[in-house]
Amino acid sequence: MPITDLSHAVTDGPVSGTVPGEKNAIAQRVIVLLDRLGRLTRELQFADGLNPAQWEALRFLAQANRYSRSPTALADYLGATKGTVSQTLIALESKGLITRCKKTEDRRQVDLCLTEAGQAMLAKDPMQTLEQATLEIADELGAEMVKGLSRLLHDLQTRNQINEFGVCQDCSLFCVNSQAALVDMNAKVGVGTCGNTGETVDAAEKTKICVNYKTAN
Amino acid sequence: MPITDLSHAVTDGPVSGTVPGEKNAIAQRVIVLLDRLGRLTRELQFADGLNPAQWEALRFLAQANRYSRSPTALADYLGATKGTVSQTLIALESKGLITRCKKTEDRRQVDLCLTEAGQAMLAKDPMQTLEQATLEIADELGAEMVKGLSRLLHDLQTRNQINEFGVCQDCSLFCVNSQAALVDMNAKVGVGTCGNTGETVDAAEKTKICVNYKTAN
Repeated sequence: MPITDLSHAVTDGPVSGTVPGEKNAIAQRVIVLLDRLGRLTRELQFADGLNPAQWEALRFLAQANRYSRSPTALADYLGATKGTVSQTLIALESKGLITRCKKTEDRRQVDLCLTEAGQAMLAKDPMQTLEQATLEIADELGAEMVKGLSRLLHDLQTRNQINEFGVCQDCSLFCVNSQAALVDMNAKVGVGTCGNTGETVDAAEKTKICVNYKTAN
Repeated sequence: MPITDLSHAVTDGPVSGTVPGEKNAIAQRVIVLLDRLGRLTRELQFADGLNPAQWEALRFLAQANRYSRSPTALADYLGATKGTVSQTLIALESKGLITRCKKTEDRRQVDLCLTEAGQAMLAKDPMQTLEQATLEIADELGAEMVKGLSRLLHDLQTRNQINEFGVCQDCSLFCVNSQAALVDMNAKVGVGTCGNTGETVDAAEKTKICVNYKTAN
């Protein structure tokens, strides 16, 4: 069935006990709204000489952990080809917004880092246009919005076999009871171990997003 | 403040009485989710040889009323330039998905219509991938999602001076009590008059989206 704008079929009231037709109308309305919001937020991100993919890359690199600041992880996150991501990175590098440094532990691997100019650019993130509006609805509808949008995103990611990129402390591989974690915990509260690499994840790292994230299910 | 992935700061519980920091974390989380969903739904729309703007144009033309099936209204809806929209329309026309017909009442004006092939293509709309997931959350979260997303969209549209494109029956210019409406209502229930053009809007037309839509406010 083609998507239709069914705003007229949606009321402001609660929907418990909705009849099938009404439920379908609400679902269609959510899809149309997401599509239009997606288009508008994309348009917003042609700003300060950057395109949407470049803004997304800056955001990702600012939040990614040490396993994830690579061109491969970025391509995965953006759902883009390596070729496209390569162009994005070249553009950001030529603008002085990111640098490629060799990882200390394995100098063959590249770590992509934001420069000071990159951090300053992120402070002007055009997606912040939505901030006031989201703050206004946060009290009344915030939790439901997060829950609903998360479920839709999870469904899309699963269906399209896209990594979820959650943060360490929500990851099923994050272990706070391992020997290494217990030793470190004496020095620093909240530290854990990555079940994938066996490495220690400190308090600052555990809120970063990771390419190896696995949901608990 | 740059956008961060604050999934860890969000709980599943209700947020009434949220502290300012938590409220901010929820708002940021909504923004990140919308951004990621926007990107993924865009990627989905490179399907069946069409691009996202072409899918959006097909959807719009299928739902637009007689005042709105023009290149100008489409450009307005898409938030795109006339040049970009022209390319989109040429592509859709060359694929045999739309036709340009002269309007009967004013033959200088163009009416863009979907062909049968266009209707068939719309039945394969890739945004329907989201249908199952939205149906699953519709009972529990549908009304809140529609309310929240509508408010965000309205805010973005107002801020960027973009038309809202609602349907006639929700429009503040739609009048069901005019003389013309009353005469026609004897023949057909639910008919009204457009306060902008003075023309009769019948039951089929009143659920179509319109470039001249005005919210009640």
